[in-house]
Amino acid sequence: MKAEVLTIGDELLRGEIVDSNKSFLSDRLLGLDIETRFHASVLDDPDDMKDAFLRAEGRSDVILVSGGLGPTRDDLTCEALAETFGREMLLDEASLETLRGFFRGLGREMAENNAKQAWFPAGSEILPNPIGTAPGCLLKEGNAWFFCMPGVPRELYKMMDEQVMPRLADRRGDGQVVRATLLRTFGIGESNLDEELADIAASGDVSLGFRTAFPDNYLRPLARAKTAEEAGRLLAQVSDAIRERLGPIVYAEGDETLPAVVARLLSEHGKSIAVAESCTGGLIAQELTELSSASSFFLGGVVAYTGASKVALLGISEGVIAEHGSVSEATARAMAEGVRERFGADFGLATTGVSGPDPVVDNGVERPVGLAYVALARESGTHCEEFQFPLDRPRHRQLTAHTAIDWVRRALLEVPIVGPSLLEKRGGGPPPAR
Amino acid sequence: MKAEVLTIGDELLRGEIVDSNKSFLSDRLLGLDIETRFHASVLDDPDDMKDAFLRAEGRSDVILVSGGLGPTRDDLTCEALAETFGREMLLDEASLETLRGFFRGLGREMAENNAKQAWFPAGSEILPNPIGTAPGCLLKEGNAWFFCMPGVPRELYKMMDEQVMPRLADRRGDGQVVRATLLRTFGIGESNLDEELADIAASGDVSLGFRTAFPDNYLRPLARAKTAEEAGRLLAQVSDAIRERLGPIVYAEGDETLPAVVARLLSEHGKSIAVAESCTGGLIAQELTELSSASSFFLGGVVAYTGASKVALLGISEGVIAEHGSVSEATARAMAEGVRERFGADFGLATTGVSGPDPVVDNGVERPVGLAYVALARESGTHCEEFQFPLDRPRHRQLTAHTAIDWVRRALLEVPIVGPSLLEKRGGGPPPAR
Repeated sequence: MKAEVLTIGDELLRGEIVDSNKSFLSDRLLGLDIETRFHASVLDDPDDMKDAFLRAEGRSDVILVSGGLGPTRDDLTCEALAETFGREMLLDEASLETLRGFFRGLGREMAENNAKQAWFPAGSEILPNPIGTAPGCLLKEGNAWFFCMPGVPRELYKMMDEQVMPRLADRRGDGQVVRATLLRTFGIGESNLDEELADIAASGDVSLGFRTAFPDNYLRPLARAKTAEEAGRLLAQVSDAIRERLGPIVYAEGDETLPAVVARLLSEHGKSIAVAESCTGGLIAQELTELSSASSFFLGGVVAYTGASKVALLGISEGVIAEHGSVSEATARAMAEGVRERFGADFGLATTGVSGPDPVVDNGVERPVGLAYVALARESGTHCEEFQFPLDRPRHRQLTAHTAIDWVRRALLEVPIVGPSLLEKRGGGPPPAR
Repeated sequence: MKAEVLTIGDELLRGEIVDSNKSFLSDRLLGLDIETRFHASVLDDPDDMKDAFLRAEGRSDVILVSGGLGPTRDDLTCEALAETFGREMLLDEASLETLRGFFRGLGREMAENNAKQAWFPAGSEILPNPIGTAPGCLLKEGNAWFFCMPGVPRELYKMMDEQVMPRLADRRGDGQVVRATLLRTFGIGESNLDEELADIAASGDVSLGFRTAFPDNYLRPLARAKTAEEAGRLLAQVSDAIRERLGPIVYAEGDETLPAVVARLLSEHGKSIAVAESCTGGLIAQELTELSSASSFFLGGVVAYTGASKVALLGISEGVIAEHGSVSEATARAMAEGVRERFGADFGLATTGVSGPDPVVDNGVERPVGLAYVALARESGTHCEEFQFPLDRPRHRQLTAHTAIDWVRRALLEVPIVGPSLLEKRGGGPPPAR
């Protein structure tokens, strides 16, 4: 099956927004082993749309259309599609009723122009939109299946996953059902992942996709079978095998981010955290407080950008900094312990390092760009490691922050606290602690 | 002139990356009053490219092509273009020499496959790439001008601005030269901007574009004239008129972000800053330390997410919090003054508020979602205001953080310290201070 994605809207062609719907849709298609051969965008202009629809009909089996389903005069996708293929526009009473109900639910009267959203090309199948006013539709023109979906990303994602994907899986012709999932990993490089999972990736009815989203790597296992149950069982099997192989490197399945996992675990365990950041400069605090549950586990943080502030705010003895320097294991440990005590938190998390672009002369010694220390203090003691992350400033900060956040997850899960192996580690550091 | 943008690369069609080159290029074209009618992406497949080139030749005057200029076997843009229009491929000796020099500059020998990047369709004009190995080219097929540029965003941006834009301006046919710039504003809503500048936007040889990039709004004045000098003079005139009308609401011209402007001003004035964040949770610290100059002006910060931490780390008296609550003007003032003193900084900046999704019961009083206090302490005194920002959690945090950062800019420029007028302000607060 050949696919193409067509997005519609003046705002796209004016460059006002970056169109991320296309990459989302192509990624999903790839999950079904369907190749996207073309991306195209056109204005809210019926003639341009018609050209695009005709061309798509001639060259593609699956056409995913997004945008132009709204209630305004500009929204012309359904009309243009009907005209292109000589279909009438018909009112779908059920959709109209759903629309009215949607507005009743909001305590508002439906505006007259919204009724337009209940009209579809004759012969099309309606794709419900439970979270918005624009239902989608599927129109089959011979081999070419046009799926029309809203442009609003949230609504598009849901319709793609719940309405479009199952229909495409059914259509695969081989009578096979496809099930896929997303496993999120932190702490291992893509080529290592690939090596580690080579045998799993190779088996017949299963395929394994990789995707880098720095500092994470995502795995997308996909299973094919004759029935949904069989495909589901196969997918569970391969997911389990991956999890067993990788252990705690897999931190979540689906959409949950690393900070969100840590937030959930902290809440579940009834534990609190405070952070002391030097090189990450507030990034850890920011990522944890971005979550709406933050006030239940996050007590606070200190961004100690100078030696003096480490002394004044974290109660680190001047001797430690004078002897070891601001960027040192001793200082990182003292920061983690100091912030834990100051805030009365269960976990004290600290970072210090050199994110660049220039090296730092610290206590008479030049500390190279890339150096990072992460320390985690808790009741049972403090764990600290030295890393060398040869990355640019933003990515150095990001990897250091996520290494630190990941340690809290590891501590709560009671698995070894180790840093990412995707990048060379400098020095020995203590052995992994439990 | 009708334009289209064509991006090339398997990674785009696999959904691995979100293609932001298209919106960048369309935005630039709009700056020249050239409408983009189509966006398209194809695989690294010569047949698909040829189809796309032929279709583009038939319907567009300007075709901006990005990608496929690299040294590998996959990079086929120039070959496919040559074949489509029956041109030979010719070696450009000057480009080959430049390429060799580029590698010599890196202290490396040029690999043989890089030589491929010096071959172009016969009759094309070379577009130099001073920051990468892939030169671009302009091939004119009758009315259709194909500009081939690299896919690497940094190289693409430079080539578009320095090589493509001037050639398009020259081609406009009306003998007119176009000059445009970008003015960045903070603190005023788009519709107010529009109203405020209605007369400026309306004049003949000048046009004014608006673009929202929350919490900022950008203005793109554009001037047309017979000569570059005249267009430049006209553009300076309109830019000056806008700046005079808006005053300090315009914070930068070009690419400088608000935190970067504040960082530059702090360095220029030899002043330092420390921050105390509650509702913004580290966002201000993070945005300031993201800049590589941070260590020259940023002393540190405290993220005080609990009342207790405000007392312990910022030295706020328990009485203030007991009497007024954590989310109050008195507490915001005490936070700003406390952090200024603790770090020995010239400026102490503080935020406290309710970013939601739930209201906070603080000291027996329910504080509504949206409430925010910003305070700036300096030698001459402390300025504090209360705001009500009816926004979701991420945007509430962002607007509060940028309001705070903007106040430091205003203080350094010695202009009135006022909050954003784009959103309703609750309560009176003190009159604007100088």
